[in-house]
Amino acid sequence: MSTTPRSTDRKSFLEIVNACDNFPVPQQGLQKYIDSIDSFYHFVIPSVNQPIGLVVPSVATAFRGLQDWKLDESSTPKTLALVAGNDDVSRTAVVEKALHKFRDEKTFSILSRWRNELKPVYGPGGGLLFKLDRAAAPILGVVSYGIHLTAFTRINDGQIKIWVQKRSQSTAFYPGLLDNTVASSSIPDGQLPVEAAIREAGEEASLPEDLVRSKIKSCGTLTYMHLRDSLAIGEVGLLQPQVEYLFELELPDGVEPKPCDHEVEWFKLLEVVDLKRSISQDKVKPGYAVVALDFLIRHGLLNDQNEPDFVEITTRLHRTLELPVG
Amino acid sequence: MSTTPRSTDRKSFLEIVNACDNFPVPQQGLQKYIDSIDSFYHFVIPSVNQPIGLVVPSVATAFRGLQDWKLDESSTPKTLALVAGNDDVSRTAVVEKALHKFRDEKTFSILSRWRNELKPVYGPGGGLLFKLDRAAAPILGVVSYGIHLTAFTRINDGQIKIWVQKRSQSTAFYPGLLDNTVASSSIPDGQLPVEAAIREAGEEASLPEDLVRSKIKSCGTLTYMHLRDSLAIGEVGLLQPQVEYLFELELPDGVEPKPCDHEVEWFKLLEVVDLKRSISQDKVKPGYAVVALDFLIRHGLLNDQNEPDFVEITTRLHRTLELPVG
Repeated sequence: MSTTPRSTDRKSFLEIVNACDNFPVPQQGLQKYIDSIDSFYHFVIPSVNQPIGLVVPSVATAFRGLQDWKLDESSTPKTLALVAGNDDVSRTAVVEKALHKFRDEKTFSILSRWRNELKPVYGPGGGLLFKLDRAAAPILGVVSYGIHLTAFTRINDGQIKIWVQKRSQSTAFYPGLLDNTVASSSIPDGQLPVEAAIREAGEEASLPEDLVRSKIKSCGTLTYMHLRDSLAIGEVGLLQPQVEYLFELELPDGVEPKPCDHEVEWFKLLEVVDLKRSISQDKVKPGYAVVALDFLIRHGLLNDQNEPDFVEITTRLHRTLELPVG
Repeated sequence: MSTTPRSTDRKSFLEIVNACDNFPVPQQGLQKYIDSIDSFYHFVIPSVNQPIGLVVPSVATAFRGLQDWKLDESSTPKTLALVAGNDDVSRTAVVEKALHKFRDEKTFSILSRWRNELKPVYGPGGGLLFKLDRAAAPILGVVSYGIHLTAFTRINDGQIKIWVQKRSQSTAFYPGLLDNTVASSSIPDGQLPVEAAIREAGEEASLPEDLVRSKIKSCGTLTYMHLRDSLAIGEVGLLQPQVEYLFELELPDGVEPKPCDHEVEWFKLLEVVDLKRSISQDKVKPGYAVVALDFLIRHGLLNDQNEPDFVEITTRLHRTLELPVG
């Protein structure tokens, strides 16, 4: 209901959201959305009545001729079916076999960062379908689950300041950008998101487990569809549907996050105005920028009075996904 | 990632959300969504490059032959165009003329509750297109804007309790159901949502303006598409796209909302467990139930450990709308 003039060297927050949730939105252009959805091979498992992933053609066609996989290119949308395995263990073995082949033959550059760490893929109702290496989720276009923990403090007058980390210049992904106090793109199967957050708070930010456990607060989820671009590692155009479990932690005076390893350059307590400026100047990792916007909205620091795209931003941070969520 | 058994006499929270956001979701069934969208006449204004509303056929066809209006039934989707007026004042007059005719001729029962209170309709970019009587928004299927203010307190150990009102048995809409501390489906054009919330807090709950103004906190929006059912007044099947501006207010000890009129039977401070039970027993007005769920999510009281549909609920409370939002 209001508009704010913007300086031209900054992005609007809606542009920041658009860069992260960059898959067509059906309500904003139905034909474009249908064309996009239909341009992917839908990754299916015959016994599951919903697609599990969305696979770009250049990836799907690499499965052609592989035992245990079947392409159907006569259907709309085209499908890539996993036709072997009848439980999570056997499916995991079949998926791993194909991915190992692609890795060893250097078929896809994204697999050069093999992580040796399995992540779960869930079906409708939340049952585990199979696991695959963290590096390979965008190959099959399956939903990834992460956690974000935002630590903050209130100064004298109740004003909120937010702990951010600067990613090391030597880190492989998004070097030198600002990131959340604690974030992880991995929640092992069977581990609760809150337990993953507590563990990472210790490993990434040296925050004492007892303190985190007693004060951590769940505050919702973010969901978005990210088409990977050249800032990420690997092929451009792979789809990364994402669920982020959000937590926050009000730190008492005197407790500060500290780097544990070379991934983090420093932690700093930012004023809201500085965090906002960093976001609009593109100095924040895209996956954290959207989490930060949601934090600011939840705490009344981004609202209809200071943000012209307030309603649209709020909706876009919580997109309903086409794929099952665990 | 977890499932909780439910007793059969209660609705799940996802069922509660489904009852409020009850228009097909494109990501959950594209053809059904397309069929639904195409079954409405799209209400357009030639100079505006986006539909402004979604009109059911039985309403759209009543505009046939009216000066200033044009039906196009050969296009897909069919359209109802407002072809007169070139600013908000002239369009308001044209819309009012048609609606007065329908009211006087008793064409639609929903107009029997004429409110003599205009509400704004915005175009892309937030410009005012025209105003129409509050009662008539579902006739043209345009976006309605409301405010919700949730007052709560923290008892000794920090545990949250929530102020709810019981709607009077004699009120026309949703009598006897629980509702938010303060809620209004009307924000006059030019008034900030927060100002509407502060005013209503005084008028509806006797909360002192100074206190509310100093402590009220914006915390986001909800968006949903509600096909009106027999619980609402008027024709079944009219579409009500909704934006709710959300606020919360932590009340200090000793301050309590009090009824000002006969619309409210009482205010009561509910424990979270009692609020949850009331929601699942369908004792809560649908428009408040979804706001309450969002409050519980934001405060960590509904989370992935106690709610099997946690992620889907969070997304569904923030649907992107097909129509412009102001």
